[in-house]
Amino acid sequence: MIRVAILGATGYAGAELVRILSSHPEAELSYLASHSYAGKRFSDIYPGMKGVCDAELMEDDISKASEAADVVFLSLPAGLASSMVSEDLLSKCVVIDLGADFRLHSQAVYEKWYRTEHHSPSLLAEAVYGLPELHRSEIVGRRLIANPGCYTTCSILTLHPLLKAGLVEKDGIIIDAKSGTSGAGRGEKLSSLFCEVDESIKPYGVATHRHTPEIEQELSLSAGNGIVVQFTPHLVPMNRGILSVCYARLKDGVGDDDVAEAYAIYSGEPFIRLIDGLPETRFVKGTNMVDISWRIDRRTGNIIAMGAIDNLVKGAAGQAVQNMNIALGLDESTGLAKGAGCPF
Amino acid sequence: MIRVAILGATGYAGAELVRILSSHPEAELSYLASHSYAGKRFSDIYPGMKGVCDAELMEDDISKASEAADVVFLSLPAGLASSMVSEDLLSKCVVIDLGADFRLHSQAVYEKWYRTEHHSPSLLAEAVYGLPELHRSEIVGRRLIANPGCYTTCSILTLHPLLKAGLVEKDGIIIDAKSGTSGAGRGEKLSSLFCEVDESIKPYGVATHRHTPEIEQELSLSAGNGIVVQFTPHLVPMNRGILSVCYARLKDGVGDDDVAEAYAIYSGEPFIRLIDGLPETRFVKGTNMVDISWRIDRRTGNIIAMGAIDNLVKGAAGQAVQNMNIALGLDESTGLAKGAGCPF
Amino acid sequence: MIRVAILGATGYAGAELVRILSSHPEAELSYLASHSYAGKRFSDIYPGMKGVCDAELMEDDISKASEAADVVFLSLPAGLASSMVSEDLLSKCVVIDLGADFRLHSQAVYEKWYRTEHHSPSLLAEAVYGLPELHRSEIVGRRLIANPGCYTTCSILTLHPLLKAGLVEKDGIIIDAKSGTSGAGRGEKLSSLFCEVDESIKPYGVATHRHTPEIEQELSLSAGNGIVVQFTPHLVPMNRGILSVCYARLKDGVGDDDVAEAYAIYSGEPFIRLIDGLPETRFVKGTNMVDISWRIDRRTGNIIAMGAIDNLVKGAAGQAVQNMNIALGLDESTGLAKGAGCPF
Amino acid sequence: MIRVAILGATGYAGAELVRILSSHPEAELSYLASHSYAGKRFSDIYPGMKGVCDAELMEDDISKASEAADVVFLSLPAGLASSMVSEDLLSKCVVIDLGADFRLHSQAVYEKWYRTEHHSPSLLAEAVYGLPELHRSEIVGRRLIANPGCYTTCSILTLHPLLKAGLVEKDGIIIDAKSGTSGAGRGEKLSSLFCEVDESIKPYGVATHRHTPEIEQELSLSAGNGIVVQFTPHLVPMNRGILSVCYARLKDGVGDDDVAEAYAIYSGEPFIRLIDGLPETRFVKGTNMVDISWRIDRRTGNIIAMGAIDNLVKGAAGQAVQNMNIALGLDESTGLAKGAGCPF
Repeated sequence: MIRVAILGATGYAGAELVRILSSHPEAELSYLASHSYAGKRFSDIYPGMKGVCDAELMEDDISKASEAADVVFLSLPAGLASSMVSEDLLSKCVVIDLGADFRLHSQAVYEKWYRTEHHSPSLLAEAVYGLPELHRSEIVGRRLIANPGCYTTCSILTLHPLLKAGLVEKDGIIIDAKSGTSGAGRGEKLSSLFCEVDESIKPYGVATHRHTPEIEQELSLSAGNGIVVQFTPHLVPMNRGILSVCYARLKDGVGDDDVAEAYAIYSGEPFIRLIDGLPETRFVKGTNMVDISWRIDRRTGNIIAMGAIDNLVKGAAGQAVQNMNIALGLDESTGLAKGAGCPF
Repeated sequence: MIRVAILGATGYAGAELVRILSSHPEAELSYLASHSYAGKRFSDIYPGMKGVCDAELMEDDISKASEAADVVFLSLPAGLASSMVSEDLLSKCVVIDLGADFRLHSQAVYEKWYRTEHHSPSLLAEAVYGLPELHRSEIVGRRLIANPGCYTTCSILTLHPLLKAGLVEKDGIIIDAKSGTSGAGRGEKLSSLFCEVDESIKPYGVATHRHTPEIEQELSLSAGNGIVVQFTPHLVPMNRGILSVCYARLKDGVGDDDVAEAYAIYSGEPFIRLIDGLPETRFVKGTNMVDISWRIDRRTGNIIAMGAIDNLVKGAAGQAVQNMNIALGLDESTGLAKGAGCPF
Repeated sequence: MIRVAILGATGYAGAELVRILSSHPEAELSYLASHSYAGKRFSDIYPGMKGVCDAELMEDDISKASEAADVVFLSLPAGLASSMVSEDLLSKCVVIDLGADFRLHSQAVYEKWYRTEHHSPSLLAEAVYGLPELHRSEIVGRRLIANPGCYTTCSILTLHPLLKAGLVEKDGIIIDAKSGTSGAGRGEKLSSLFCEVDESIKPYGVATHRHTPEIEQELSLSAGNGIVVQFTPHLVPMNRGILSVCYARLKDGVGDDDVAEAYAIYSGEPFIRLIDGLPETRFVKGTNMVDISWRIDRRTGNIIAMGAIDNLVKGAAGQAVQNMNIALGLDESTGLAKGAGCPF
Repeated sequence: MIRVAILGATGYAGAELVRILSSHPEAELSYLASHSYAGKRFSDIYPGMKGVCDAELMEDDISKASEAADVVFLSLPAGLASSMVSEDLLSKCVVIDLGADFRLHSQAVYEKWYRTEHHSPSLLAEAVYGLPELHRSEIVGRRLIANPGCYTTCSILTLHPLLKAGLVEKDGIIIDAKSGTSGAGRGEKLSSLFCEVDESIKPYGVATHRHTPEIEQELSLSAGNGIVVQFTPHLVPMNRGILSVCYARLKDGVGDDDVAEAYAIYSGEPFIRLIDGLPETRFVKGTNMVDISWRIDRRTGNIIAMGAIDNLVKGAAGQAVQNMNIALGLDESTGLAKGAGCPF
């Protein structure tokens, strides 16, 4: 059994990790930590897990975590992970960071968008961007895995084949994304209150959202050079789910078959479904799946590529487990759900 | 008092008309009709209106309606209105059609997008497109008013100043719009069930939605010539509200002040608020307001213009009453709410 | 015009007061105060009111409020109002307290249930319990009005006729009530987060909720002597609305006609609808109405009496305005909505 | 592997069966039928199951089902199952009926409450009421299992220990229950539309709901003789979940310890959690768990016992699988979730 630790176990992503790992056949939770709730049992904070995970919550002590576990998941506020991880630590355990600290290859880009200092820039080169569908072979055996963001996972996977195959113009890409409210976290903020979210939709972080450089970094790799995107997130009155609707101009002469062929690179992927219909977030809820489809509009010359994920699963905890499975040589799908109940 | 008739009074838009007109100080409901519920009282179908509107529902008989009323509102399925309205009818009453039959100036465009025959093409020239902020003077004294669609009202008003002032490129405009579920109507469809809508977001009608030509017709007028837009609607798990997020490329040299100046054409508008923050549909819920703001992204060269309305008010019944007020020479704001309660 | 002040204007009940009073034809808002947001404009906090109420928010200073206004509404945390109100103050203005400090006639009962000292017990005798349907004549001309709680308004009005007419046993009454989340207020509490409320229902305050003694006080008056009730509130994933489902044992020989006759005492009430169907909170949303119906179950010998209100209107701000109207001799319905739009 | 058939596989309960059984390690779906969608693939109707269950849907032919499967689950409208099941059929397969046809031991009671003829009364004696916590030993090896209703499962399990131990008065029991909207099924009914359910709560079937006799039958067994209950269901704007709040009068002298001891009969139950806090439906969502707690109110002499389940799992499909597991001698918990993610 793989011994697993989670720091930040009582945030929404951390708790989802607990849920998934509790029924993972090859992992055992050996160290759960929560700064806010140290001393309580996990099921005191998440009563839905009573009888399934009643472990006592420890302090967010990465040293103890690394002693107790083979794999340490970090689900912490921005900036904390980079101050905790060190070469020494990585010699003791595999670290999978659900935060943003190791996602961007460029320290400068990180510090510009996150407006904070990076505490361990020397480790950036060691980290792999843990999006298995793009970097699977690099994840195998890796010690430091930067788990991608939720919006970014969905947006990158939706657009990647088009850029990889060179079917669309590199400029003018627009990503209009929508997220359930769990993406805002468990903080006690006015803007997250039921009565402030219910029965409304709003954009936020227009032209400034921090997932932008992450999307651009990866899509630039897909395209071969610099991609700049317009990224707009929205808050939707629902618990879970991300929908990315991406607009790009098809190059002249590109046909339906070319597009289908480009997306066929996903044909062996265990967690990507190319669907005929249009994606709905409910159809991936609770699963690690990505549903993707596209439409070509000959009137406008655009392709509209659309993807849906569950932000807490493929957008966070599920993908982190997928990364663990790959890094440690397990079957990639172990412990991860593929079928969504409906309604849920 | 203006005597008012409503055909299709028990659909969501029709019922909202009843609600608004019931407290309109210069109108009285003289004929309410519903094909499905003729013979019942309005408050049997909408118990929230018991004691406020207990009128018996008639058959959808436009002849009787025109005898009973000075203004006849039509809230009917596509194709019905164009078979009911005639020159003779218009000599007896003002007709305000909440449907699509008289919105498009071109019969060919109508028949292509709606896949149905237009039954009174000769009247198209008599109809005015009832978007007061663009066509106020043409509405005054008019006999046949085509009340705009919900998505279209929101999208056109959001983009109009930019095109009118020539600040953005005419090609490549993208409108990513989101709507509450009342926009799907009161029909007993599987896709409108609570358990099929709740906790999910989905796009629909991608590249094919019928509001597209209506948006293009009006924005082409704003711009001086042919505008083609990419329009994508979404269904959001909430009752009411439309949010249009519009993307356009700013022309070289256009600055913030130019944009502010362009939107200043709305400065005297009773139902448009230019806001500093980003629009949220809850802040216009139950009102006839349009909240509009924009952001310029120098990284991408785009302007993101955003607007929010209540689809049943400014997107349907409220705007219809606004049109009635203008057509008949009343104060334009009569009977229309401007302040939104929150939470609602 | 009546000059009106509101202390606690940015809580949900306070903001609803602003919304209602903004369109009240005989009132003008002369002093709006908010401890948390003093110095900002009301519409900075509630952007849905931009252009309707842009007044600057003052400190919660009751002395200044009493100078600026004829009527002062207090929407404050428990215990604050009783420390602010004095005989001197009441000589300058009418005070309508939306909190609990003056609702209970007994200081001892107040201090037991609220676990706090009462700061002005001598004023308890001056206060009237502002439930117009039960105490209308006492409200006229009164200086200190204790506006009832939300659950209590709904529960008392639903049960009052049965106890007044002596149709049910006095013991064994059970009130199972359900509320929308705005009843929990605007505080930044974990339990009020969207993701903690959405897609769930829960009871709370079982056997201990503070609205219990208020219900018992009033129903004891209805019945002629001591009524003890079992009151259970629940939190429902919706913004607004309260539903009270009340169970009582019918006395032997009581028939349907007796019950109908008992409820007929409400026949002239402007804000009570006796309905044939079962109440749904959506049918009173945004209005000051109470929808009431009942069913007799001969199998069990019980009567089930059910009532619905909007907790922020008839359960708070609307009733407060109704009280103001009565106290000052205006038409009782002035400025209060009766017809509910649907869906809303 | 156990071969399993489902008739009515595209209703919400049927589809949940598909979801659960798809990952059941000892079952394989061998025959899926749907009257409405025969000829389509299951994942055409439930796209969230694409890749997990793409089986073609057959006609609701019980004869073919019995040939293809060892266990046949029926999830059909009332009255259909009793016309399909026969001695001959039961000699070929185990039948687990999720409908009501075999739940009530008395044909007369069935026909009175369901207002329809029972087509196979001779089989009533062969059927076991499939509530494992009460009838586990009778389920083992059984051929015909009547899977309990959703409200009934929750209400019976919540009250059973109190009646079994004789701690409460037998008369005057009140059950106020609340359900998510999936309980209303997938039918295209006006009352199930999003815009008719969202942002509202309502009671329905007051004094007449068909789950009443089922609750009374089982609680009468618990108590030793005739129990009559007042049962009131409500519709809540959420997808899943049932909460039963039950009121009973404690007998004189009954103390907290007596109650705790009574509920201790559940101590070995794999799917019942006795909790200190109050139940919330979100904490059992997606699981087969029942969360139960109670409060004694010395003021009123009542005990308030509260239980929560997921109506589609423990209230339908999960319990059906639990019954299959027991009937066939598998570990009772096989394939059934115990830990609830949150938010979900």
